[in-house]
Amino acid sequence: MKINGVSYRSVWVDPNDHRTVCIFDQTRLPFSLDILHLTECAQVAHAITSMQVRGAPLIGAVAAYGLALALMKDASDEAMERDAAMLASTRPTAINLRWAIERMLKYLRPVSPQKRVEAAYKEAARICDEDVACNEAIGRHGLELIRKLAAERTSDRPINILTHCNAGWIATVDWGTALAPIYMAHDEGLPVHVWVDETRPRNQGAGLTAWELGSHGVPHTVIVDNAGGHLMQHGKVDIVIVGTDRVTTRGDVANKIGTYLKALAAHDNEVPFWVALPSTTIDWQVEDGLHDIPIEERSATEVTMLTGQTASGAMETIRITPPASPAANPAFDVTPARLVTGLITERGRCKATAEGLLSLFPERQA
Amino acid sequence: MKINGVSYRSVWVDPNDHRTVCIFDQTRLPFSLDILHLTECAQVAHAITSMQVRGAPLIGAVAAYGLALALMKDASDEAMERDAAMLASTRPTAINLRWAIERMLKYLRPVSPQKRVEAAYKEAARICDEDVACNEAIGRHGLELIRKLAAERTSDRPINILTHCNAGWIATVDWGTALAPIYMAHDEGLPVHVWVDETRPRNQGAGLTAWELGSHGVPHTVIVDNAGGHLMQHGKVDIVIVGTDRVTTRGDVANKIGTYLKALAAHDNEVPFWVALPSTTIDWQVEDGLHDIPIEERSATEVTMLTGQTASGAMETIRITPPASPAANPAFDVTPARLVTGLITERGRCKATAEGLLSLFPERQA
Repeated sequence: MKINGVSYRSVWVDPNDHRTVCIFDQTRLPFSLDILHLTECAQVAHAITSMQVRGAPLIGAVAAYGLALALMKDASDEAMERDAAMLASTRPTAINLRWAIERMLKYLRPVSPQKRVEAAYKEAARICDEDVACNEAIGRHGLELIRKLAAERTSDRPINILTHCNAGWIATVDWGTALAPIYMAHDEGLPVHVWVDETRPRNQGAGLTAWELGSHGVPHTVIVDNAGGHLMQHGKVDIVIVGTDRVTTRGDVANKIGTYLKALAAHDNEVPFWVALPSTTIDWQVEDGLHDIPIEERSATEVTMLTGQTASGAMETIRITPPASPAANPAFDVTPARLVTGLITERGRCKATAEGLLSLFPERQA
Repeated sequence: MKINGVSYRSVWVDPNDHRTVCIFDQTRLPFSLDILHLTECAQVAHAITSMQVRGAPLIGAVAAYGLALALMKDASDEAMERDAAMLASTRPTAINLRWAIERMLKYLRPVSPQKRVEAAYKEAARICDEDVACNEAIGRHGLELIRKLAAERTSDRPINILTHCNAGWIATVDWGTALAPIYMAHDEGLPVHVWVDETRPRNQGAGLTAWELGSHGVPHTVIVDNAGGHLMQHGKVDIVIVGTDRVTTRGDVANKIGTYLKALAAHDNEVPFWVALPSTTIDWQVEDGLHDIPIEERSATEVTMLTGQTASGAMETIRITPPASPAANPAFDVTPARLVTGLITERGRCKATAEGLLSLFPERQA
């Protein structure tokens, strides 16, 4: 996508030396656009653990390049397995991270050490290109929904889309998942406007989604997480599109905390509620999302402390609760399938049901 | 209620001089407990406009004392009417403010200027005492609900109560509305625990409700507004109690933005959702809350900027959104009566229906 007219991906190889890996320091967004040039595997590991890169697909892609950088130093079997294990351990839960490392190892093990560096860069590039192609396909299938809403409009007001958290291009290599259809609609001239949920406590909406959309030129408005229901009651939301961290076989959707509340409001106001996902997000082992998806409890300081920019431009962290008050911080919730209008995958759209999912992924039929 | 074991009201007359009016500077809470000593009407006006005092009942009570202070300087008819009008204009929407000023004028106009100061302090004290008595009655009627939940418990876990925004004692003269039953339950030894919604954008939950409850010793946990639905899905909320800014004749409830989302989640999980209110909050002119209650749109900076305490103890304001991103800030939403289990008033509890309200207020029968 674009930042002030210039196209970027979230990770790329420096065109001048073909070995240095470039990423944005996402801990500095939205206040500063800093490009990091990574030349060592340890820098990649640090970028992942410190959340300079985040978003499951992006983490996987960057880790793949991390292994390529490691091979530049030592391409022996022993070193490769050790560095791969180190990279895989940088984040405990991201499924794409281990998937990407496994794929790299599977490809590189039969290759002779002398040829591994070249091969690793090629395979990492393929992982990136495949992520982009997958998200582009999700975008095309979601775009049809927005085109339909545009065709049905009776006034010239924009198509109002509400989203929660950040399922945008900087969480992936490009396009994003929930935001891919929105970028495509905007790029083909459809008048879209996005309500961006702030997404407390980590504020990925206020910080990242708003920055992404603004940088690409997509009209948007930041709202607190409390506001979406009110906007739906007053006809100001035409469709909700969110991403997901895990979808079960019956269509339950785990996503950032607060997604369930928006799904309830959408249902109560007959607003379509769609979930965009690459099929790698489907957990074919789990049916009942409410009981069988573990919900990560994160640090209370994410609730009690907030970081932002002071008037002087410095970054500062402030406390917003009484020092003696405890806080709880469940990071995700599960939206029952009954509240989900449908799923948008790279293979097309389907209902959030077992039948719907199997219609798109018949190879999963028992 | 108590602050570290000492009983306070939110407004009181200095026992040493019987003329100075004392309040807490609520703009400094929860980080500093500063008592302001007001000796002039202009200081009272400033306290209201700058939100050193807030909460409709408290504003009315403090404004009444403001008129008493004004009369100390000039008790003539002309000055009294002028100062009353000035005080009434300090906040545009608070219904209790104008009600309190009108009541003071009605009482004071027949009184001779020489006796007005004494009379004004007495009437202001009566307004305060009546507010306390009203809230205490609300508390007793709500307490019965908590006692019932306590009696029905099958384990020894606490009774978990979720609340949104601040409808506590510092929004009134004492007790509060939604928090009154909770203080009573705690004081009689029932094991209550309160989930405190942060309540973005102004964070009255994280800042004020958490401080109130903690200062009185009531167990509580701050959560982001996104978390309540998830907690209800997992049986961690036994009852929701909130306050309200306006209730319509059919029981629709206007309250702080985000209340509607909690009501939807409560309904979806069969959690009782109660609204506590003094009967002065009922708008007998309006039936359809969704269409006929105007919703205040407040400054976008409440969404984009946040104030809190830095590690060094200083207060600092930070920006949390990209500078170029607009924000919208509807301050209230309307919860349809169908989602409200019932209303708790000073006269007792009733269903959130026209019949329910008229059963408690038969004098309103057409």
